[in-house]
Amino acid sequence: MGPGKSIIFFDEGIADRKLLGGKGAGLAEMTKLGIPVPPGFTITTEVCRLFYKGGERLPDGLMEEVRRAMKRLEELTGKRFGDPENPLLVSVRSGAAISMPGMMDTVLNLGLNDRVAEGLARATGDERFAYDAYRRFIQLFGKIVLGVEESLFNRALEEIKRERGAEYDTDLDAEALKELVKRYKAIILERLGRPFPEDPYEQLEGAIAAVFRSWNSKRCVDYRRQFKITPDIADGTAVNVVAMVFGNMGPDSSTGVVFTRDPATGEKGLYGDYLPNAQGEDVVAGIRTPRPIQELEAESPRLYRELVEISERLERYFKYPQDIEFTIERGKLWILQTRNAKMNAAAKIRSSVDMAKEGIISKEEAILRVEPEELEQLLHKRVDPKFNGEALAVGVPASPGAASGIAVFDADEAERRHRAGERVILVREETKPEDIHGFFASEGILTSRGGKTSHAAVVARGMGKPCVVGCSGISIDPVERLFRAGGVVVKEGDLITIDGGSGKVYLGQVPLVEPELAGGLPELLAWADEFRRLGVRANADTPEAAALARKFGAEGIGLCRTERMFNAPDRLPVVVEMIMAEDEAQRRAALGKLEPMQKGDFKEILRAMEGLPVTIRLLDPPLHEFLPNVEELLRSLEAAKGKPDEEERLRRMLARARALAEVNPMLGHRGVRVGVTHPEIYEMQVRAILEAAAELAREGVAVKPQIMIPQVAMAEELEAVKRIVDGVRADVEGRYGVKLDLKFGTMIEVVRACLMAGDIAKYAEFFSFGTNDLTQGTFSFSREDAENKFLPKYMERGILAFNPFQTIDKGVARLMAICVQEGRRTRPDLEIGICGEHGGDPASIEICHELGLTYVSASPYRIPVARLAAARAAIRRRGAKGAAGLA
Amino acid sequence: MGPGKSIIFFDEGIADRKLLGGKGAGLAEMTKLGIPVPPGFTITTEVCRLFYKGGERLPDGLMEEVRRAMKRLEELTGKRFGDPENPLLVSVRSGAAISMPGMMDTVLNLGLNDRVAEGLARATGDERFAYDAYRRFIQLFGKIVLGVEESLFNRALEEIKRERGAEYDTDLDAEALKELVKRYKAIILERLGRPFPEDPYEQLEGAIAAVFRSWNSKRCVDYRRQFKITPDIADGTAVNVVAMVFGNMGPDSSTGVVFTRDPATGEKGLYGDYLPNAQGEDVVAGIRTPRPIQELEAESPRLYRELVEISERLERYFKYPQDIEFTIERGKLWILQTRNAKMNAAAKIRSSVDMAKEGIISKEEAILRVEPEELEQLLHKRVDPKFNGEALAVGVPASPGAASGIAVFDADEAERRHRAGERVILVREETKPEDIHGFFASEGILTSRGGKTSHAAVVARGMGKPCVVGCSGISIDPVERLFRAGGVVVKEGDLITIDGGSGKVYLGQVPLVEPELAGGLPELLAWADEFRRLGVRANADTPEAAALARKFGAEGIGLCRTERMFNAPDRLPVVVEMIMAEDEAQRRAALGKLEPMQKGDFKEILRAMEGLPVTIRLLDPPLHEFLPNVEELLRSLEAAKGKPDEEERLRRMLARARALAEVNPMLGHRGVRVGVTHPEIYEMQVRAILEAAAELAREGVAVKPQIMIPQVAMAEELEAVKRIVDGVRADVEGRYGVKLDLKFGTMIEVVRACLMAGDIAKYAEFFSFGTNDLTQGTFSFSREDAENKFLPKYMERGILAFNPFQTIDKGVARLMAICVQEGRRTRPDLEIGICGEHGGDPASIEICHELGLTYVSASPYRIPVARLAAARAAIRRRGAKGAAGLA
Repeated sequence: MGPGKSIIFFDEGIADRKLLGGKGAGLAEMTKLGIPVPPGFTITTEVCRLFYKGGERLPDGLMEEVRRAMKRLEELTGKRFGDPENPLLVSVRSGAAISMPGMMDTVLNLGLNDRVAEGLARATGDERFAYDAYRRFIQLFGKIVLGVEESLFNRALEEIKRERGAEYDTDLDAEALKELVKRYKAIILERLGRPFPEDPYEQLEGAIAAVFRSWNSKRCVDYRRQFKITPDIADGTAVNVVAMVFGNMGPDSSTGVVFTRDPATGEKGLYGDYLPNAQGEDVVAGIRTPRPIQELEAESPRLYRELVEISERLERYFKYPQDIEFTIERGKLWILQTRNAKMNAAAKIRSSVDMAKEGIISKEEAILRVEPEELEQLLHKRVDPKFNGEALAVGVPASPGAASGIAVFDADEAERRHRAGERVILVREETKPEDIHGFFASEGILTSRGGKTSHAAVVARGMGKPCVVGCSGISIDPVERLFRAGGVVVKEGDLITIDGGSGKVYLGQVPLVEPELAGGLPELLAWADEFRRLGVRANADTPEAAALARKFGAEGIGLCRTERMFNAPDRLPVVVEMIMAEDEAQRRAALGKLEPMQKGDFKEILRAMEGLPVTIRLLDPPLHEFLPNVEELLRSLEAAKGKPDEEERLRRMLARARALAEVNPMLGHRGVRVGVTHPEIYEMQVRAILEAAAELAREGVAVKPQIMIPQVAMAEELEAVKRIVDGVRADVEGRYGVKLDLKFGTMIEVVRACLMAGDIAKYAEFFSFGTNDLTQGTFSFSREDAENKFLPKYMERGILAFNPFQTIDKGVARLMAICVQEGRRTRPDLEIGICGEHGGDPASIEICHELGLTYVSASPYRIPVARLAAARAAIRRRGAKGAAGLA
Repeated sequence: MGPGKSIIFFDEGIADRKLLGGKGAGLAEMTKLGIPVPPGFTITTEVCRLFYKGGERLPDGLMEEVRRAMKRLEELTGKRFGDPENPLLVSVRSGAAISMPGMMDTVLNLGLNDRVAEGLARATGDERFAYDAYRRFIQLFGKIVLGVEESLFNRALEEIKRERGAEYDTDLDAEALKELVKRYKAIILERLGRPFPEDPYEQLEGAIAAVFRSWNSKRCVDYRRQFKITPDIADGTAVNVVAMVFGNMGPDSSTGVVFTRDPATGEKGLYGDYLPNAQGEDVVAGIRTPRPIQELEAESPRLYRELVEISERLERYFKYPQDIEFTIERGKLWILQTRNAKMNAAAKIRSSVDMAKEGIISKEEAILRVEPEELEQLLHKRVDPKFNGEALAVGVPASPGAASGIAVFDADEAERRHRAGERVILVREETKPEDIHGFFASEGILTSRGGKTSHAAVVARGMGKPCVVGCSGISIDPVERLFRAGGVVVKEGDLITIDGGSGKVYLGQVPLVEPELAGGLPELLAWADEFRRLGVRANADTPEAAALARKFGAEGIGLCRTERMFNAPDRLPVVVEMIMAEDEAQRRAALGKLEPMQKGDFKEILRAMEGLPVTIRLLDPPLHEFLPNVEELLRSLEAAKGKPDEEERLRRMLARARALAEVNPMLGHRGVRVGVTHPEIYEMQVRAILEAAAELAREGVAVKPQIMIPQVAMAEELEAVKRIVDGVRADVEGRYGVKLDLKFGTMIEVVRACLMAGDIAKYAEFFSFGTNDLTQGTFSFSREDAENKFLPKYMERGILAFNPFQTIDKGVARLMAICVQEGRRTRPDLEIGICGEHGGDPASIEICHELGLTYVSASPYRIPVARLAAARAAIRRRGAKGAAGLA
């Protein structure tokens, strides 16, 4: 034997999970608390390790110790193991440091044999109970310890039921069960050539070894691999030997399960059911309907009070809503197990907030208890979880939330129907910038092509609209205005429902449930705000999105994209005119038409965010994105034959599109590169922003615009744009007679900008990480290409542990750390944010906290997630190393 | 006046360039050496600064100092300023710390007035000489000091020549020149309302101020801006007042210019010409033919010896071949100026090597004297510099060297004609991988489209073949098989010449000169090898290129690209078959056909580089590069109508090409990403390499293959490929019974690989920087797009000081430094090279030296450049900070 004790009783006051496993430690803990737990002991996990070291044999001397322990158990229970007069029965249960529900084996009612069964029948006055327990024990023991196929037992059971005309197991009487016991024993003798062991200690030895063996069963090994349970977390199972108690010993016996709070709502109070005169199995069998626990109060106020009291004590002790199994044996309450309750997000939030208010846990604990991702399900409509209708097709879930509406097949039709008061779902093979008005008009978007970064996905997420993309199971015919899925044809005007959380597409209206914003969430987020050090801003391009973000607690706008405004149907033609300009003068003329439109946009957004900073990014995409592509133009040209003017116009556009075409547009002529080569475009945008701000300032509205330049790689680029901004600012401030509260800064989304941050900070009052592009540059991965081609294989093969476009990679984090350090060295008060999609990812937010960023910016619907994640990071990282450690 | 002395005489032994300017310091230096220099003094640059501080006025008291200095000059010359009997005339010359040839003003013959001119005529007995000097002085003084338009003087000169029937100026006699002086003076009186100043000191004061003023003339300011001459380099001009000497005082006077070594060949010995009885101007006017300097020996052995002796002393003193101006005045030799001679590359190399052998300079100085880029012009055939025929068109010079041949318009024709013994130039709109056999068959390549990184440019450079790309001045008609340029039509078979150094395209055969490898270059490179610490390897994909590289001194192959081998016409169909495979089995079958071909390639290259390392990069480009593009396929499909089998084949290929298409191929599914998703491709290549090596090893050939993986971003990728290599290696070593001398390593061309170098070095025995891709990732610039679109504007606007794709940028260098540090921390003996095009760029090689790289790898023709650059870096960087400083 090893150095430690092999066997520890529940009442020894030791509750070491690693040594005793979760179940043993829990039972010991409850025993210590004076909770009525059936007596018993634990054979430690150390013995399990010795079992495997010795070639799957129980260590020498163990069974002597077990015998001594059983003697003590007899003393504690006043019963005797193997004694027909007053028999002690035990359960032999597994239990590792980490719960692996249902993976390992358990044997109940151990200690029964022919004589003991007869004695038990006498002692309880219930023959049927005794033989029912006996036949169940033989079946379980035969299967688990002796390795006899379960089907043989089941066949024997079915046979006897047929013979006796019994419909249910419970229809068998004591005599029939006695006969069944005989037949079970015959099966064992036939299969093994030796009889079922009548000796209780032989039974016990076999059961202990069987539980140890189950630790290395294939399903257990697979489970541990799947959930990354390594030996440092849990190494072997313990074996718990527990005195049996019975809930089926008559009308004053029962069994049940209760929660200390409603696992669906989090509401405080005992919640659960029980079954009189029953065993746990009977509940599962579903033959009898359990009663709500409250009925126990009427039946036995004493027992009910005792249960309530114990539940409350357990919850207070474990500081978590508990899921408790109990049995009442002839008027005596026994607690068999307690564990932390599994709850949905709403219940978790409500119970955590309540428990903090009740003083059971601290606010920090409440915050750490709720996973930020869980909030997401509360912030969107979703398909009623009780609905289980079949989906027409399943695509890629691209933007959460569910929506119902009639299918329409182009953006104009969507707008028309929307104006007419209909709710529509826009269905397209893929979407384009010119479909933008269709997005505004729709409840949700469904595409048959594209991935999570397709145009449809990105725009829908930005607007917080449900979206399913890449739904290859539907085949769209835009001419006939219908789609086919399986055998179904969905025509324009037919009602469909999409679920952007699961990717499912349903025919017709499916029941949806509303987002639940109540139930403690506002309080939890208010507490989170007390702890977080990171600011939280929103990515929002419209006044509506800005207002929504503000409602969700955004402290400003971290990213307002101006190119979206270029795509509105009334503007795109002017943008095209600007791009087609033959010289700067023509270009300036077109820009002159755009300027008042942009100014109007900015005024609305700045007004919506009064008093808060609004970071506006100047034009980012390459100009060719605003032109139809070459293939489209070729088609249009074909169609325009015979109309010389139109042909000429298209021919010119084709030439321009060809001249602007790029091999790698992601790395092409875009962002500040356009700003440097066509300064008049940025000048127009800067003027629109500053005049909007100045007009509002004169109205007395407090505005804080921040001008942000995309794609900067060199301090010199930023310097060139700053000269434009300074010039326009001086002019506008002079003309309006106001002093603007303006900041000038840059996206950090190019690798070089991180490396040269010290130089760049000379011209920038703020940085904002664009981690999507930064990740692309760091990995040399084009996200669009990677996510469709090799990235899934990389994750599958374990070359990547996670998708770096969802969570910040360590290489990218290192670049960010260099940037933060060097930027702040030049400008200690440098404001540094993040506005890539990572800004809404909890794991990435923790990295941002560690890097010492000023704020994260996320889409409006992710604001609560970000607030919570930022607080959790602050709480968890107290005293941890800062950015310097990462660099 | 300021604290220092304002005036310093040449004989004071002070030769401070910053204070005295280059000319003054040179004259002082020569005076110190006892060289006969006309006496004189320098008014310092400090006075110039005071001149500007005081609002363009000479400082108080300066003219008193000048008067005192003139007294001393009178003593030194025995002549008197303004004295008609024995007049002292002076030149007033500019001279800044940095030479700005021709930018500032000079006044000669100052001190002449009516009386002095008459006296000079008497004293020299040469009235014509005296009045010629006088009228030249008035003209120069009038223009420079008084600001009278030069055209007025020229008109007066032309008038008098017409009146006197004189053809040349020299046809005017003394009387006519006297008359001209009168008219000049009348012009000045009329223009200024005051007469020409007869007082020599008034003249001197005016001239000094005029020279100072010329420092801030527009052309001077522009020049300084252009050449980045900032005040810390040169701040103001000095003024040199020098006693005049005259080479036109009779037959025992002369003037000339000599070099101490032939500036065209570097051959040692006096080289130059002189003109008896003449002034410098007469040489420039070109009326009389100068005599070779050797004739002076016959005329006056004493003066010739004196000149030789002084030349040698000056060269030894300045340790550089000198360019010397001299005047002989009545038998007395005066040296007026000496400066370092301008030489072509051949002369520079030869003279530097000779001077080192003569003990004048050290080997290090010889190495530092030759710019590595200068070697390039010696290593290729080039158009005879004397040829000045007109070019048909000018394109982008993409690969140096000149070639003549008949124009052919496709690769197959090129091959046919080449086989028939003709020399051909391949002319295409642009080239594709499938044109590769045309490259092999051609002397040079000309395209009408594409830039320095187009396929044609890259492939031609790799092969060392002359290439002109993007020659938009020619319009190619591939159907008619001709091109037009200006009015000329060049048909297939017509002879043309291209110059890849200048981008020029000529009609017909143009005289070419052979590369000069002699003249000290081998010695210089041998010395360079003694000093350099960087190894030099070659980028070579063929046995021929490998042999050439070895001849040029390569110490191995740093980059052998395997995809080029895939493009050969006999292999491309098999590669396409591999790509079109429906499953792994089909793919393996196609790969099985490729394997022996690749093995053959590797055997030849490994054999050519016996004893030296050969780094072979596994497949890098995305697979779709080997398929025809979608547009081509659509055209082919159109053409295949009615042939169902062909249509079906093309349709399948089109589907595959569409499936493989990428938005940003540069960042797409390529390199190790293909190696990970299709491991059978890398496995085939590894097997081909290792079997080639094993077969040679059994023959007794010493081979050192190095397997290199492209595009690695993660240690996990490299680990996955290493498992393949280890497996194949064990198999091959076992089957052949040899132990291979093999290294396994990776390209470092992805930003993340630099940041995670410590992890990656666990699996890599060597790193090789691919700085082209690394620069793309660091800047988020697609090179192809950037160089055609915004990069030129960036350079023009000074946002980029140089093209980062030619010279390593500091941001990229910083990443490299991080990589070197962390890689070597994991594996101290890590071999680190560079194989991007930067490996042949001298400025980048210096950075590589500083970073502590093991070697650079460059195209064969750049090997000598790299050897020299590496030595220069080692010499210059002695004792400088290492890589740590950059990180």
